[in-house]
Amino acid sequence: MLAEKEQQLVRSLQECMIVCNHCLNECLAEPHVGEMLDCIRLDRECAEFCSYLEQAVIRKSPFVQELTSLCISICGECAKECQKHKHKHCQYCAEICTQCLEVCKSYLD
Amino acid sequence: MLAEKEQQLVRSLQECMIVCNHCLNECLAEPHVGEMLDCIRLDRECAEFCSYLEQAVIRKSPFVQELTSLCISICGECAKECQKHKHKHCQYCAEICTQCLEVCKSYLD
Amino acid sequence: MLAEKEQQLVRSLQECMIVCNHCLNECLAEPHVGEMLDCIRLDRECAEFCSYLEQAVIRKSPFVQELTSLCISICGECAKECQKHKHKHCQYCAEICTQCLEVCKSYLD
Amino acid sequence: MLAEKEQQLVRSLQECMIVCNHCLNECLAEPHVGEMLDCIRLDRECAEFCSYLEQAVIRKSPFVQELTSLCISICGECAKECQKHKHKHCQYCAEICTQCLEVCKSYLD
Repeated sequence: MLAEKEQQLVRSLQECMIVCNHCLNECLAEPHVGEMLDCIRLDRECAEFCSYLEQAVIRKSPFVQELTSLCISICGECAKECQKHKHKHCQYCAEICTQCLEVCKSYLD
Repeated sequence: MLAEKEQQLVRSLQECMIVCNHCLNECLAEPHVGEMLDCIRLDRECAEFCSYLEQAVIRKSPFVQELTSLCISICGECAKECQKHKHKHCQYCAEICTQCLEVCKSYLD
Repeated sequence: MLAEKEQQLVRSLQECMIVCNHCLNECLAEPHVGEMLDCIRLDRECAEFCSYLEQAVIRKSPFVQELTSLCISICGECAKECQKHKHKHCQYCAEICTQCLEVCKSYLD
Repeated sequence: MLAEKEQQLVRSLQECMIVCNHCLNECLAEPHVGEMLDCIRLDRECAEFCSYLEQAVIRKSPFVQELTSLCISICGECAKECQKHKHKHCQYCAEICTQCLEVCKSYLD
């Protein structure tokens, strides 16, 4: 129903949604939550867009390429912000966002 | 990050989204598409709601129980409509919606 | 294209989405953001569900009634939490959520 | 809570969602529905993306500019397809998509 390439993208987007939401929830629970606001906002953005792209891939949208390009930027911005913080959840989120970004890139090749 | 129970629900919802969208696309390609309109509409409803519930589980929404109850009805209505049609994609969609409904039920137990 | 009743519901849901997101953003900017976590989470839930219901009304979903019932609970929970806080944005959000809940109720009558 | 510019965009996106979903439903009811498949698919795409952008504007996403650019393409493709069909709902949908596209453009100016 989905080709292997689409399945890989969908799996990666779902993992990214899970990890961004986890990071968001953990950031809210940090004692210095005031320093985590950009991270919280970008986690939400990244999770929302990954979910939108997941649905677009699944419904075989004709705009998957343009949406995937945009996903590369959004995952990249989220990874960049997460890398600034030393919390384990932020470091892990940076890693998964970067991985998702790579899967998006190889999808477009 | 997600407990096994949540992971199973998320996997089942994603499969249901994929199969409902496949059924919808195939219904649109049927020669007697005029007879498939209820199926097309319910496939869309079921896919949209499964996607919403997937996101709610992933963000650890406090309303997951109520949303899962509603998902049982929506998957049930979609399965009932799909069962009326002899096309392979409809029969398969009925099967996967019923399976998703069972996973929702066992999640609530 | 939409009956007056549906238009009123859609307008109310959109206003609620705007006000919940505003409250969420303002809560994140509060000096005691650690005390606002439940409010932040419920603002997000309420905004997401209002958006889903808005789309469901607009696409003339057969599940609008069930979704509207659930919206009443979600707006109610968000209003209850917002009422606990003396910030203007929380008090205003409680007011708009309660108003949206009333529009949902009168839609179902 | 939203600046006049954002309010105008949100109003236009909501109108576009309503009209695209109306066109989609009417296309499904056309006797020659087999000729309307591209229109049905693009109506859905356009409605889904307008809804996503509406939410992004409302939550003050840092990606509103990039999303609005993409919305211009999607509304444009939907308008182009709708213009091919002489049905009143298609002609009207083409008009509203073009109007939404213009509001998106002036938002970016």
